[in-house]
Amino acid sequence: MSILVVGSVAYDTVETPFGRAERVLGGSASFFAVAASFFTPVNLVGVVGRDFGAQQLAAFDGRPIDLAGLERRDGETFHWQGRYAWDLNSRETLRTDLNVFETFDPRLPEAYRGSSHVFLGNIDPLLQRRVLDQVERPRLVACDTMNFWISGKPAELRETLRHVDVLLVNDAEARELSGEWNVVKAARAIRAMGPSTLVIKKGEHGVLMFSNEGSFAAPAYPLEDVFDPTGAGDTFGGGFLGYLASRERFDDETLRRAVIMGSTLASFCVEAFSLDRLLRLTRPEIDERFRLFRRLTHFEPLS
Amino acid sequence: MSILVVGSVAYDTVETPFGRAERVLGGSASFFAVAASFFTPVNLVGVVGRDFGAQQLAAFDGRPIDLAGLERRDGETFHWQGRYAWDLNSRETLRTDLNVFETFDPRLPEAYRGSSHVFLGNIDPLLQRRVLDQVERPRLVACDTMNFWISGKPAELRETLRHVDVLLVNDAEARELSGEWNVVKAARAIRAMGPSTLVIKKGEHGVLMFSNEGSFAAPAYPLEDVFDPTGAGDTFGGGFLGYLASRERFDDETLRRAVIMGSTLASFCVEAFSLDRLLRLTRPEIDERFRLFRRLTHFEPLS
Repeated sequence: MSILVVGSVAYDTVETPFGRAERVLGGSASFFAVAASFFTPVNLVGVVGRDFGAQQLAAFDGRPIDLAGLERRDGETFHWQGRYAWDLNSRETLRTDLNVFETFDPRLPEAYRGSSHVFLGNIDPLLQRRVLDQVERPRLVACDTMNFWISGKPAELRETLRHVDVLLVNDAEARELSGEWNVVKAARAIRAMGPSTLVIKKGEHGVLMFSNEGSFAAPAYPLEDVFDPTGAGDTFGGGFLGYLASRERFDDETLRRAVIMGSTLASFCVEAFSLDRLLRLTRPEIDERFRLFRRLTHFEPLS
Repeated sequence: MSILVVGSVAYDTVETPFGRAERVLGGSASFFAVAASFFTPVNLVGVVGRDFGAQQLAAFDGRPIDLAGLERRDGETFHWQGRYAWDLNSRETLRTDLNVFETFDPRLPEAYRGSSHVFLGNIDPLLQRRVLDQVERPRLVACDTMNFWISGKPAELRETLRHVDVLLVNDAEARELSGEWNVVKAARAIRAMGPSTLVIKKGEHGVLMFSNEGSFAAPAYPLEDVFDPTGAGDTFGGGFLGYLASRERFDDETLRRAVIMGSTLASFCVEAFSLDRLLRLTRPEIDERFRLFRRLTHFEPLS
């Protein structure tokens, strides 16, 4: 099993009420890959500029992350700058320099084409489909998107969704995509577009999953100190798909544990800037927090 | 076991995107009592005006709800009028006529003084304490409050909280009462004020409980049609405390099931105006939805 991930590898400049991090490693594919690599080998497809060097690449060292698909182009790396409000629930984008990411045209190294699982990060739905065309016979395709594509390229997105098994979006995106306020109705409408499984990420309010087997609700882990939410959604995706791929099955029980594994990884991600916490995370810490998630949610049937 | 509840018995006029209900039965004590009565006898303390007659009282008929403490005074019954926005998450109070509730001075019938459990609905913390003074030796005291008392009578509320075992509030109230944005920090601060157990109600995002045994998170039941959220919080309280009282124990497992039972009752409450759904609810329906709550949240440990 191996996961192909396509998405951004970027520099982030982040301001939170607790501090500021300047040009640190970010991007959807970075967070996803590191989280997923705890469980399954990852094939990364992305693009960086000449300003992205050995020091930045070192973050991926010693992990089963293949970087043959990380193209290095003339120009500068994608840079995002944002500021979080004091409650960490809303953020303002101060600056988006797409740079080499603007003309990103994902091309898969030959060795990637047999990837068993695919994660289409939040890029143009047309590019997402172009990636799918290059994969031979994936067993599972998961996909992220955002309001920019939902309103900007609705027809292209609809076409991509026909080829997607699992869609991961936040609640606002689910509402916009479906035109339904109620999440149960939104889920039914979206699942009719293609994805048999819909995972709605609600930030501090947890996750709702809708699948053929019904619905599953997971809380976010109640943390005393949330430091920087950047990348939590992609980290969730990495934990979710990484765990799924490692199990080689998609039954309901496995999907549920995958949601909790995604939530577990995301709960670590927000404890520090950038990928700092993920990079010093250990498998025993992951398993312990998974266990705490079970303690957080478990109750006995009525006797 | 029996539960003493003190709170409002009122007429509500409610507008939602789905319709309008004029002068229907409402009030915190009404919702609480009907929900709790599925599990435990309830002793109700409240006040109504001369306009509250046999027809209104019929709602409580055939249930173990003692109305000896429902005072009938000259004047009109408390009337609340509100309008919900299209998303049902925010509401506007159009009118509050306290009427006979304005000079409410709760007096317990002799037979109520031995109540084993007490629910202090959202009234002046001074009156909440006056009720407690009239109960002999309650085994458990639960309490609700609101921003009006948190900011308006902080010292009186603090004094009341010293005598409370379980505080039930929403997330905004928990933050205001504690002065902490983070809910984990808020919970620690509030539990230091007296209540060993704090239940934070987050509406469509579920419930968080903090106790000596740690934390417990429960989702709200994902409903396709939410009709009217009025009374959901008090209905949660009734299901929670009613179940607890019926079990005669307060261990962690029982508290967790009580949270789910509260959430179960609340999920029915919002399906119709006023107490309409609760009044035609059956115990088998309750047990079935409790079972669905377990299905909604359950996952297996890592193998």
